[in-house]
Amino acid sequence: MASLGMAVNVDAAGNLRGFHASAKGSERRLLIGSHLDTVPNAGAYDGVLGVVLGIALVESLRQGQLPFGIEIIGFSDEEGIRFGTPFLGSRALAGKIDDELLAKTDANGISIAEAIHNFSLLASRLPEAEIGSDAFAYLEFHIEQGPVLDALNQPLAVVESIVGQSRWSVTFQGEANHAGTTPMHLRKDALAGAAEWIEAVEQQARRVQGLVATVGSVEALPGAINVIAGTAVTSLDIRHPSDKVRRTAGTRMLQTAERIARRRKLTAHSRPLLDQPAVSMDAGLVEVAADAIRKAGCTPFRMPSGAGHDAMIMVEKVPSVMIFLRSPRGISHHPEETVLAEDVELALAAGEHLLRQVAIK
Amino acid sequence: MASLGMAVNVDAAGNLRGFHASAKGSERRLLIGSHLDTVPNAGAYDGVLGVVLGIALVESLRQGQLPFGIEIIGFSDEEGIRFGTPFLGSRALAGKIDDELLAKTDANGISIAEAIHNFSLLASRLPEAEIGSDAFAYLEFHIEQGPVLDALNQPLAVVESIVGQSRWSVTFQGEANHAGTTPMHLRKDALAGAAEWIEAVEQQARRVQGLVATVGSVEALPGAINVIAGTAVTSLDIRHPSDKVRRTAGTRMLQTAERIARRRKLTAHSRPLLDQPAVSMDAGLVEVAADAIRKAGCTPFRMPSGAGHDAMIMVEKVPSVMIFLRSPRGISHHPEETVLAEDVELALAAGEHLLRQVAIK
Repeated sequence: MASLGMAVNVDAAGNLRGFHASAKGSERRLLIGSHLDTVPNAGAYDGVLGVVLGIALVESLRQGQLPFGIEIIGFSDEEGIRFGTPFLGSRALAGKIDDELLAKTDANGISIAEAIHNFSLLASRLPEAEIGSDAFAYLEFHIEQGPVLDALNQPLAVVESIVGQSRWSVTFQGEANHAGTTPMHLRKDALAGAAEWIEAVEQQARRVQGLVATVGSVEALPGAINVIAGTAVTSLDIRHPSDKVRRTAGTRMLQTAERIARRRKLTAHSRPLLDQPAVSMDAGLVEVAADAIRKAGCTPFRMPSGAGHDAMIMVEKVPSVMIFLRSPRGISHHPEETVLAEDVELALAAGEHLLRQVAIK
Repeated sequence: MASLGMAVNVDAAGNLRGFHASAKGSERRLLIGSHLDTVPNAGAYDGVLGVVLGIALVESLRQGQLPFGIEIIGFSDEEGIRFGTPFLGSRALAGKIDDELLAKTDANGISIAEAIHNFSLLASRLPEAEIGSDAFAYLEFHIEQGPVLDALNQPLAVVESIVGQSRWSVTFQGEANHAGTTPMHLRKDALAGAAEWIEAVEQQARRVQGLVATVGSVEALPGAINVIAGTAVTSLDIRHPSDKVRRTAGTRMLQTAERIARRRKLTAHSRPLLDQPAVSMDAGLVEVAADAIRKAGCTPFRMPSGAGHDAMIMVEKVPSVMIFLRSPRGISHHPEETVLAEDVELALAAGEHLLRQVAIK
């Protein structure tokens, strides 16, 4: 960014920010960004590709071509690995960091406030990180991190919304007993009940368009090869662009757990962990981005994002939109995560069309 | 035992043994025993009740009533918790302890040979623990550790056989992926495959008389709430009095795992951990014990034991039989493990009848 003549700084939340001023000296600015962090043992494209694409767009401009400035943002801590809370960087830009959040601690008991200090930044200057009214839009490029575009052989998509999520812990309780001495008809096998439910969750999710439901973890207790499980603790993650569809599906799945448990003389207890509503991208910008994708020679495919992104936070403060790049084989958060060079070229072309369109409006 | 005038010693395997001589001075002896150890956080009756019942039988004799002696044995390490190998005490009586077994180590690297030494015993004297031809029968009382007798409202049963066991580790392999971005139809969810199989195992076991099959443990990897499981590692424990039925059922369950995996584009890999044949009790002693139970006023119910017992080892060396006492609610290896006092009285009565019957023969 410095080599492109941009004014570069790191804000109090650790976001790397570079400003490309307009020829007219206007402070009005389009924000383009994504995150610089990713998860452990991850790939090379999650997040940072969106930052690099923003810088490439600035590079592609001839000085003074646009009536507004461009601010590139490399967000800090989007993943939330260290403190268990994602989107720290974008929360700072949206003015959503409060003392409660700053007091959250990592595994070593170091708070976010201390971590900011240890990084030679001043938490007291966080308010300065918040964007002002001169920011009129936010654009984020990101790899899809899923298999949809690859399966459809589409390079790009415009993200219409970020799905809502429900998370639950569901525990089946039966009676641990001896695997050899307890006949099948006298068992209260918590794991067998959980297994029946895991299948039912999958079946129910398959029957609803756009719904995904995942039991990603299960723990059988005592968990011995020769003991019938007395307890099975499972997790449930449900996502859908429509909050109504998601909540209806969740209610049904939990009712199914209870029905299965009752029939098996078990109990099923569910504990809600998360109920995060779906977030829509800016409708006008979705149209602009779709048009830009078409002008780049691609089908303007629209899809929801099944994962959370900084744009989810940013859209609370400023009209926002995302463009997805195909993830070959849907692989992400893995060393084999990649992108196709031609898809990146198309994304860059779409970005240029988008900038031109925004400049005209 | 000492207060009853018995000759008491501890053999080189740590078995506590007491000999009640016959009036005629014959060295011929009936062995009565069970184990003194149990599992951590267990109850008060597993094992030790059988030893105490043997001593009570000796106490009930008037001196010189029988034409043979009685040797009471409180077996050491039946459970195999410390060294991972059960039946150490009874193996010593059966002459089945070799150098390979003695070299097995506990979690702290202490071998069985060292543990024997640390207990002030001499491993070199293990051969003396082996029973000779003067031992003509072995009788073991034991709590059922299962719910069968309680469900049938029967106090006692004679054990006809100890079931054979197969154990397997069965691993389903799919692809870990993002729970939000991977549509249902593009998933290779190893845990969903395992769940379908766990249900199938239960269904197949229910359809075969006397068969029990248990998936007691499952591990989903990576095991995160928001990640589709790429791997699910399960265990399978199958038991039946007939080795043929058990092995046929096992083959079918593993084939089912493969079929489910294939349909779901997963793989299923099974690794055998144990294939222990069923062991029959002595047919003649089973009749004597059944008769003794009847004479005590009970139905001479016959059943297989779903769990292993010292009698399983002893029967290789000497005609053996077991009598089960009802386990209220089938609870064992648990602080709530118990027996009914009236059942213990019936067991004692049956034992007295058995001794008389053996004396006549």
